[in-house]
Amino acid sequence: MSASILVVGSVAFDSVKTPFGEADEILGGSATYFSVSASYFAPVRVVAVVGNDFDENQMAVFRKHGIDVEGLNRVAGKTFRWKGEYGYDLNEARTLDTKLNVFETFNPVIPEAHRSSEYVFLGNIDPELQLKVLQQIKRPRVVACDTMNFWIQGKVDAVKRTIAHVDILIINDAETRMLAGEPNLVRAANKVLAMGPKTLIVKRGEYGVLMFQGQSIFGAPAFPLEDVFDPTGAGDTFAGGFMGALAHAGEISERIFRRGIIFGSVMASFNVEKFSLERLTNLTRTEIDTRFRQFKQLTHFEEF
Amino acid sequence: MSASILVVGSVAFDSVKTPFGEADEILGGSATYFSVSASYFAPVRVVAVVGNDFDENQMAVFRKHGIDVEGLNRVAGKTFRWKGEYGYDLNEARTLDTKLNVFETFNPVIPEAHRSSEYVFLGNIDPELQLKVLQQIKRPRVVACDTMNFWIQGKVDAVKRTIAHVDILIINDAETRMLAGEPNLVRAANKVLAMGPKTLIVKRGEYGVLMFQGQSIFGAPAFPLEDVFDPTGAGDTFAGGFMGALAHAGEISERIFRRGIIFGSVMASFNVEKFSLERLTNLTRTEIDTRFRQFKQLTHFEEF
Repeated sequence: MSASILVVGSVAFDSVKTPFGEADEILGGSATYFSVSASYFAPVRVVAVVGNDFDENQMAVFRKHGIDVEGLNRVAGKTFRWKGEYGYDLNEARTLDTKLNVFETFNPVIPEAHRSSEYVFLGNIDPELQLKVLQQIKRPRVVACDTMNFWIQGKVDAVKRTIAHVDILIINDAETRMLAGEPNLVRAANKVLAMGPKTLIVKRGEYGVLMFQGQSIFGAPAFPLEDVFDPTGAGDTFAGGFMGALAHAGEISERIFRRGIIFGSVMASFNVEKFSLERLTNLTRTEIDTRFRQFKQLTHFEEF
Repeated sequence: MSASILVVGSVAFDSVKTPFGEADEILGGSATYFSVSASYFAPVRVVAVVGNDFDENQMAVFRKHGIDVEGLNRVAGKTFRWKGEYGYDLNEARTLDTKLNVFETFNPVIPEAHRSSEYVFLGNIDPELQLKVLQQIKRPRVVACDTMNFWIQGKVDAVKRTIAHVDILIINDAETRMLAGEPNLVRAANKVLAMGPKTLIVKRGEYGVLMFQGQSIFGAPAFPLEDVFDPTGAGDTFAGGFMGALAHAGEISERIFRRGIIFGSVMASFNVEKFSLERLTNLTRTEIDTRFRQFKQLTHFEEF
């Protein structure tokens, strides 16, 4: 039995437009993408807030994947809404509208039964709330954390206080440069590692991932896809696959982290093939393992 | 003894400004970067045109690397000048000035002794001239070719006529999308392969390289560097290391192509560490092999 993963983040209704189509009010949010992705590898517990417009249809997605929803707090009001658009360069979303709704006063309370979770992922929420979550957890084995430019610009001290307490920071390349105040990515990564995390994972969208640990660097391309429909949630899906693979292996080592990067990349590659969670909620373990092996084919070369 | 490589392209004086410094009138050009890079692996013959301002100092660089300069045609006039600038995003150069000078009337004539070269690289010159070069060559084993947005926009029919006759096309991702008229890179690559080349190598600057051959894809990240001073010539240096490794191996196979991609990436990673050819002209085979092994460390992950 794999160790459990606790994720704290957002659950949202997204309205997304891409050059290939659009979808309105579909289930999204960092905690949702993370949970479903991680659920293929290990038991998941989600802590988030939703409004009373969040009904059985949405709940069914979490139930289907055996995700523990004790910490999914339902309060009066409307669920968080995000509306965004992508151009042909699918690497960057343009936010058209954000309505925080019940998320505005989100104050995560970790259910007693979840406080001893061994693996913890702090989704992209206010860094002060991320720290509050950590204060409620008892001796976790691995804590990973996401953040974004909005917090780095507006609350950089809180971001630094939080990441001083996490093992793994998972952010994109622009955020890495911004947090370090340094244009060269390798130097920026080293500066971020000096802020506390033992591992920095830098997401680069269609260009893949770099992982920095001490002096060691691991690089993996993204899986090349003919059909990329909707990149929403790719980063959280990646984090879910990565943390899931770690919890499943139950071992903390560079070897397992590297394999986790590939499982995360596999999950993200499935996620972007269809809108919302459509692909992610309908995967088999065989499909996941097959794509992992395709990744090996993609990157393998012989010594000389 | 490795088979010889023939390269046809430009020799230039570059003036380059980056956020880290600047250099005036330094030796550059596609044929120069390619030749020096390839010379670490196999004998190289260069065909290009220079003016009478090209003196012993420049010639010494070619001599140092044992490059055959019989086809380096010296004519009355000035050598090609290029002036460019890079911002902190070192992926893209801004051209400030181009003076074609003697390059404007370049009509490559391949010396008789070079017409049976087994490996041929057509640097980024007018696609009609590239085709004229091919017509002078006797049964080459491998022909690779570069081109750029300027030719794809202005002479797309000539580009297509030329690449129908080459084995390997080496261009960047924007050029691939432009040539195919397709935003998705995998679909674009398949369209380009349908134009003739059996292999398409897509350069993505700091994000590495993708190689497409039939249904097979190989992906490699760029080597992460703390010091990137001057990306000028990185693409040609990559092509030189790639073709050099092919000629050295003397075998045409996916296995050797993949290894060639890594050797090309190794050479490009050295090149960008200093201005102009400063690093590239002062390498040892041990340094090259050590970085190749570091690439293996960078990308290796275990099956599960």
